[in-house]
Amino acid sequence: MDGSATTSAIDKDTRRAIEDFIVDYAHMIDDDRLEEWPDYFTEKCTYRIINRENFVRERVVGVMECSSRGMLEDRIKALREANVFEPHWYRHILSGTRIKGRNGDLFQVETSFTVIRTLQEGDMSVFSAGKYVDEIIVEGGKPLFQKRVVVCDSNRIHTLIVIPI
Amino acid sequence: MDGSATTSAIDKDTRRAIEDFIVDYAHMIDDDRLEEWPDYFTEKCTYRIINRENFVRERVVGVMECSSRGMLEDRIKALREANVFEPHWYRHILSGTRIKGRNGDLFQVETSFTVIRTLQEGDMSVFSAGKYVDEIIVEGGKPLFQKRVVVCDSNRIHTLIVIPI
Amino acid sequence: MDGSATTSAIDKDTRRAIEDFIVDYAHMIDDDRLEEWPDYFTEKCTYRIINRENFVRERVVGVMECSSRGMLEDRIKALREANVFEPHWYRHILSGTRIKGRNGDLFQVETSFTVIRTLQEGDMSVFSAGKYVDEIIVEGGKPLFQKRVVVCDSNRIHTLIVIPI
Repeated sequence: MDGSATTSAIDKDTRRAIEDFIVDYAHMIDDDRLEEWPDYFTEKCTYRIINRENFVRERVVGVMECSSRGMLEDRIKALREANVFEPHWYRHILSGTRIKGRNGDLFQVETSFTVIRTLQEGDMSVFSAGKYVDEIIVEGGKPLFQKRVVVCDSNRIHTLIVIPI
Repeated sequence: MDGSATTSAIDKDTRRAIEDFIVDYAHMIDDDRLEEWPDYFTEKCTYRIINRENFVRERVVGVMECSSRGMLEDRIKALREANVFEPHWYRHILSGTRIKGRNGDLFQVETSFTVIRTLQEGDMSVFSAGKYVDEIIVEGGKPLFQKRVVVCDSNRIHTLIVIPI
Repeated sequence: MDGSATTSAIDKDTRRAIEDFIVDYAHMIDDDRLEEWPDYFTEKCTYRIINRENFVRERVVGVMECSSRGMLEDRIKALREANVFEPHWYRHILSGTRIKGRNGDLFQVETSFTVIRTLQEGDMSVFSAGKYVDEIIVEGGKPLFQKRVVVCDSNRIHTLIVIPI
């Protein structure tokens, strides 16, 4: 069985801090506080959206790829300026954060998710489902993403994902 | 970053009690034990269903509004007597309860949710998505809603929500 | 109120172990590590998929029924050999595990779920919603399902559920 890392290996406060961090990230996006998005990452970082097939075959062919906090900031600025897309909301529903391993202050973490999208007129649909595969560094009790890979179950990811997942 | 209140500020047992309470509420509705619904609220209380746009603009224009346990009881009685709607089930899926602040025994809490509705013939769909914005009072280790605001992402809320969310 | 069993009655580590176990099970299926599926059950066990109506009326008329680890193994072998169905992925989203009671090492546990199915071409939909009604035995800190009943809200369960839920 490929279980979660035993709780004995990770102190409860660190685990709680990581779980809260992942939840806070989801609320940040859903609350449209996107300017805070880069604050969740280390200065040098990886943010990648990739489909499941490419992820499993270890092809690094992401739909979106950012490698620094600056790139994340640029992305949000562009999004705010463009603003041409049909208004819509995301709602992230997370499920079962697993801490799969650790290496000093660096934690390997996986969390399943689905995103429900609501268009301004009111139509709701399942926009995305998949899992986050994260590397989270915890320093002074404060977690940050060193790497967040969004693995989407669907091969047909919207080529223009405007809002980050 | 608008993070969750630090765990240090809230003892773990109180936090667990609040999280369990929110989970129990969802099961109560999904199990069709609606007569228990008013028991989750203080005698004087607020239960409001509102769309996101009105909530953000601080307009108190709810789709449903109750201000006492008695009103909640009346609502359930009416629902049981009327019973004209097409039979359906709800399934609440909750995500990531955040304790955002406290003031003595009163806690500000937010939880994202989606509700999957299943019609008797079997059709399933996303009925609602949004977040609960709660004020929960904890006395003697027992939480109760002083205020539960159901903020729906969609502007097009069914005008006749029969079962509470 | 039909609340969760008080935390005082169950030590926190046991509760965490049970919650992690339920999360690990979901990831095992979604990661397509189905050969591990039987390892989550005791040698003699019950795995049943049933609709809500039959469950409530205590009719044991399941859509799928297995009574030993061997039967679970056979099922996965058959699934791997047949492999005729349209390729698809599941994504389990769990919500709010409740420990409802205990009897020595045996715990009664309920967890709401929804399953998002993604077809290879990319179409996503709500495949199932309902709740797990479990009896979990914990020995030496290690949980196993003695009984897992998957209660589906919909009466129209796919007669050929290939992948377990």
